[in-house]
Amino acid sequence: MPEIDSYPLFSGTQIAPLRALITAGDLPADGFFATSLAQLQARVDPALKAKLDVPGHGEAGSYAHNRHRDNAHTIEAAGRLYQMTGNRDYARLATEILGLYAERYPAMPYQQQKNTNPPGRLFHQILNEHMWLLYAVLGYSHVRETLPETQRQAIENNIFHPMIEMFTVTYRHDFDRIHNHGLWAVAAVGICALVLGEDRVLDQAIFGLEGDSISGGYLAQIKRLFAPSGYYIEGPYYHRFAIRPLCLFAEALHLHRPELDIYGFHDQAIGKTIRALLMTSYPNGRFPALNDASLSMDIKDEGVVIAVAVHHARYGHCDALVGTARQQGQVWLYPCAFELAQAVDAAPSEQEQRPYWPSVELNEGMQGDRGAQGFLRQRQHGDITQAVMNYGQHGMGHGHFDTLGLTLFSRDQEVLREYGFGRWVNVETKFGGRYLDENKSWARQTVAHNTVVVDQGCQNAFDVALADSHHGERHFFSGTGPVQAMSAFANQHYAGVGMQRTVLLLELDALSSPLLIDLFRLSSEQTHQYDYPVHYQGQITHSNVDLQPTERRVLGTDNGYQHLFDLARGPTPQCLSLTWLQDNCFHTWLAAAEGAELILAQTGANDPSFNLRRQDCLLLRQHGRDHLFASLFETHGQFDEASEHCEGARGAMQHIDILGHNDQGSVVAIRGEAAGAPFLMTLMISNRADVCPTTEHRLFFNNTEYHWQGYFAVVTNKE
Amino acid sequence: MPEIDSYPLFSGTQIAPLRALITAGDLPADGFFATSLAQLQARVDPALKAKLDVPGHGEAGSYAHNRHRDNAHTIEAAGRLYQMTGNRDYARLATEILGLYAERYPAMPYQQQKNTNPPGRLFHQILNEHMWLLYAVLGYSHVRETLPETQRQAIENNIFHPMIEMFTVTYRHDFDRIHNHGLWAVAAVGICALVLGEDRVLDQAIFGLEGDSISGGYLAQIKRLFAPSGYYIEGPYYHRFAIRPLCLFAEALHLHRPELDIYGFHDQAIGKTIRALLMTSYPNGRFPALNDASLSMDIKDEGVVIAVAVHHARYGHCDALVGTARQQGQVWLYPCAFELAQAVDAAPSEQEQRPYWPSVELNEGMQGDRGAQGFLRQRQHGDITQAVMNYGQHGMGHGHFDTLGLTLFSRDQEVLREYGFGRWVNVETKFGGRYLDENKSWARQTVAHNTVVVDQGCQNAFDVALADSHHGERHFFSGTGPVQAMSAFANQHYAGVGMQRTVLLLELDALSSPLLIDLFRLSSEQTHQYDYPVHYQGQITHSNVDLQPTERRVLGTDNGYQHLFDLARGPTPQCLSLTWLQDNCFHTWLAAAEGAELILAQTGANDPSFNLRRQDCLLLRQHGRDHLFASLFETHGQFDEASEHCEGARGAMQHIDILGHNDQGSVVAIRGEAAGAPFLMTLMISNRADVCPTTEHRLFFNNTEYHWQGYFAVVTNKE
Repeated sequence: MPEIDSYPLFSGTQIAPLRALITAGDLPADGFFATSLAQLQARVDPALKAKLDVPGHGEAGSYAHNRHRDNAHTIEAAGRLYQMTGNRDYARLATEILGLYAERYPAMPYQQQKNTNPPGRLFHQILNEHMWLLYAVLGYSHVRETLPETQRQAIENNIFHPMIEMFTVTYRHDFDRIHNHGLWAVAAVGICALVLGEDRVLDQAIFGLEGDSISGGYLAQIKRLFAPSGYYIEGPYYHRFAIRPLCLFAEALHLHRPELDIYGFHDQAIGKTIRALLMTSYPNGRFPALNDASLSMDIKDEGVVIAVAVHHARYGHCDALVGTARQQGQVWLYPCAFELAQAVDAAPSEQEQRPYWPSVELNEGMQGDRGAQGFLRQRQHGDITQAVMNYGQHGMGHGHFDTLGLTLFSRDQEVLREYGFGRWVNVETKFGGRYLDENKSWARQTVAHNTVVVDQGCQNAFDVALADSHHGERHFFSGTGPVQAMSAFANQHYAGVGMQRTVLLLELDALSSPLLIDLFRLSSEQTHQYDYPVHYQGQITHSNVDLQPTERRVLGTDNGYQHLFDLARGPTPQCLSLTWLQDNCFHTWLAAAEGAELILAQTGANDPSFNLRRQDCLLLRQHGRDHLFASLFETHGQFDEASEHCEGARGAMQHIDILGHNDQGSVVAIRGEAAGAPFLMTLMISNRADVCPTTEHRLFFNNTEYHWQGYFAVVTNKE
Repeated sequence: MPEIDSYPLFSGTQIAPLRALITAGDLPADGFFATSLAQLQARVDPALKAKLDVPGHGEAGSYAHNRHRDNAHTIEAAGRLYQMTGNRDYARLATEILGLYAERYPAMPYQQQKNTNPPGRLFHQILNEHMWLLYAVLGYSHVRETLPETQRQAIENNIFHPMIEMFTVTYRHDFDRIHNHGLWAVAAVGICALVLGEDRVLDQAIFGLEGDSISGGYLAQIKRLFAPSGYYIEGPYYHRFAIRPLCLFAEALHLHRPELDIYGFHDQAIGKTIRALLMTSYPNGRFPALNDASLSMDIKDEGVVIAVAVHHARYGHCDALVGTARQQGQVWLYPCAFELAQAVDAAPSEQEQRPYWPSVELNEGMQGDRGAQGFLRQRQHGDITQAVMNYGQHGMGHGHFDTLGLTLFSRDQEVLREYGFGRWVNVETKFGGRYLDENKSWARQTVAHNTVVVDQGCQNAFDVALADSHHGERHFFSGTGPVQAMSAFANQHYAGVGMQRTVLLLELDALSSPLLIDLFRLSSEQTHQYDYPVHYQGQITHSNVDLQPTERRVLGTDNGYQHLFDLARGPTPQCLSLTWLQDNCFHTWLAAAEGAELILAQTGANDPSFNLRRQDCLLLRQHGRDHLFASLFETHGQFDEASEHCEGARGAMQHIDILGHNDQGSVVAIRGEAAGAPFLMTLMISNRADVCPTTEHRLFFNNTEYHWQGYFAVVTNKE
């Protein structure tokens, strides 16, 4: 039969030299490419001997569900391994599984619908069917050359043509949806059409059913899903999921539709969005849980592995990219990733190579004018501290009502924590692995986040449409040097209440870790109850608040408060101080808190099915019209229980004072003792929405004048 | 000055060839000895440049406390490194620190007493002063040869002689205490006397102040502290602490008092107790928390590192010993450990070398007739499962009231959990790192353990003297093969209530992990409330009990119940089934529970200082006279949230039934479906205290005869 010289993601001339290297054994055995290849073979080789099975239907996480998913992955991986190694056993494996589906698929009924997603014939939502198709057709394209025409016909006519029919005709209404699911649809259908030589369908996948590149199709998805900064509205958890089909289809079009110049398309949108995703990640590779997300999703996700390889191949080298690849522990096994693998081999030791992305502000909205996500980073003594603030858009159906929400990552832990989603993905016994009711009643509520709650309500009253119509407003962002800061407003999220949050991340020689300072200002004509939540984890080791245990009443009836038990309360002194031990180090929270009340709360109330993880949070409760929450978070000391070594259980910072605040600015003083010397710092922050670098500020508080130019000023006097 | 050819723990002729190897650079750089040496140098070398300091007094965990401790460790390590490398900088470092203490120590006042321990002059308890002396004098002995006589005199007269005076005269009453602290005292004083040539004092350390080797001294400690099995009454946490001075002094006497044949002394007691300690450890190297203990103490502790080297050098090689050494990640840097290091280098890869100790029963009491500690182990698919049952003595002042307590270790996690102690060692802000009140009010109480609580009381009414006078009675122990079992009685721990617990650990081909079966039988003339606690960690993913959230009332007023919140309750069906997810796998508890109530509880009540860790437990509550709790614990499935893979969320075992029980025996049936086939197992357990291998049992329940010989029988019919 005629050799095929072109595959969806590479040409025969691209794979040939690689195959030669591998078959000749000339690939350095301890090299990154070889070890990645060994990993893939370790995954696929058992299937060479195992019994094949194409089961019926099942819930997410069930044997049937997992088996269909694994079958598709095996078809793709085996096909790829055949291309890499020339070993026909891999081709046979892919063929046999495809053969079974060719027999059974036509007779399979549609599954019963389980959520908003239309059902497929293998899975309960077509999203999974799209994914199945993408993997299966890639694998098929790699082994097709080994098959007689009759077998090709059986596979194409019984599986692939019916699937294209299902996606573009039966579910036509769903095909052009601008959404991460839509990306999977167009990539799967597009690559399948490419393999089957269905140019008309391929055009539909690229330009949309209407052919206008606006109402739908791959190009429209690129233009409409990502902000100019590359940020994806639903957040990193869904971004890393969308980026897989984005990159796979891009590679196919790069090879087969060069005239589209897909990597240059829309001002290099694909490269920008890959960088944007990577720049959201914490130093340990995990993604901050912005909107619905698991707390453990990280850069090892297959989509990110592919994206890193694609960026390196199509947009060029950068150290952080190579560091990320090493952190991923594997490289995408396609010809275009070979250079990246070599770069990893050539790079210095792991320690130095942990990726260090710069501080960055990622704008939101198609025009980049609907707020942003802010990421501040400081590297001190080799350890990277990161603060993340959300002052952008609501995340659509997966959005959390947490504008001005803040997280802090320090000493390899998330210290100011996100809860993530209320869901156990693929755990059959937890509502089939789908989203739980508590995702709405707790996880997406404002109080579940580190942002102020007004009158025990939820931002935008938990109205998604309303929330989508609003967004945060950037104030200023300064992301370089030892003093970094970001500031934003959210004035449409609680009726009649203006909110401004300013976060500083300071690197001080005298301290072992950067200092986080948080000024959260509220202004209103009416008196309100303001709750400032601190979601933490660990054991309280010291507090200057006289906390009295309560009868653990439930804190409220709705907006998430119905899930919070009231563990203890106490009136706060002028400056609250509370220290907790999280794993192997201490964290101290100082807050100006005159006349406030501190509430210790824990999740778990009204949770009959035990769907909530039990977590602790602190609520600093204050009543007023205009109010400034001034807080400081210091990471200090270390504790190793196994060796029974402990030091630095007390922090260096002792006091935070509000000297004054108004609509012009806020002035705060911080006192402590660092490295044996007294430490005094004064911070001046502009509260003017119209502030620019030359704006002059003159404020008088207690007969003292505070004068500075621009966004903010920090004065440190070592007395 | 004359070269000294003899040191406390090695002779000049033993160190010379090692020094030659090292200085010549002939030590294989990636070998275990060389990497351990590099670790030690990495610890000490910074001190060569750092500023020296001898501070005043401070709490445990304070700078002063830590600094004194670190100074002594630096003196010892620097002295040793000088002997190994011949580098005089190390000798100078040790000398300079000793010089500072020679200046200041004489003027230092005694510290204020903080606990039952007499205070020292550097530390608040002389225990720490003993430890300081042991390290300091070892270091001194290694560098003495480099010092002029005047300097030697200054150090010996200002530090070491006064310390000997303090320990043997001032605190004479404390010197002969048979206790782990006593071992530190005699080892420190003995080795110091050896270095100073004070033979009389050395004799006191060996034979006691009375010289009778009974009332006190090292030999008496060996005879009286350890059971014939080698088990140490306070449990592994204090055992690993006592074993350090035990081994150090043994090495000194082995070299300098060979006529004592210390390693042969008292039927090789030292070797036996080293093995006994190692055989208590979990597969991950942690020690089960029997009595007061941290949950993270493990075989990496310095005492265990020394003990492993000593055992290998003096009692010979065994694979588990070498595996333990590798797990420790370092070898003791003394000449006698060189062969062990070479054995580690020669041993197969890490995976195969995780130590696999056999199942073992360790008897208690000086005659070995006061009960025992039982350890069952099964290795399946490379994973080691371990069950631990306490049916021995009360642990003296550190004893927990938990006779018949059970823990289970599976898939690298403690699944049926111990709470450990209520203490943050060396955390200054937690009561100076000392034991917290909650250690008595919760951690040591019966309900804090996995053993039945009668009428919400505590075993032996929390009376230590009473508890010390009682102990568990072994029934039978069978520790080999796929079906292992241990059984014991505790009839003196609750007035008028007899208790028997039988635990089986079964390896079944059809299951991925061994099955734990637990039959806890109570018998009494009167009706009692029996609570069967299950201390677990994780998220409940399924239960067939209709659990109704409660108002979180506190469960009781004392005996630990005052610290438990009542989260939810439900009446139980005939067979209770509850599954939880702990980290990456599932655990299902099945229990015959007709007419019982299940209570979900959580620690944290009446804990104003937040001294308790929040932990969950299940209480299966039943009322009756004679009652059998029949439970089964199955570990199954896996969940990887990061990759969103999940399988086996449901267990294979479905039902456990009590067919009958009386004072002759108990018969239980287990049903399930394993590997696609129905599974039925019948267990017959002897309840006769006088059972022997030939005892015949014939029991009739529901017109069925159950007949077996000996301790127990297991019949499995694949229907």
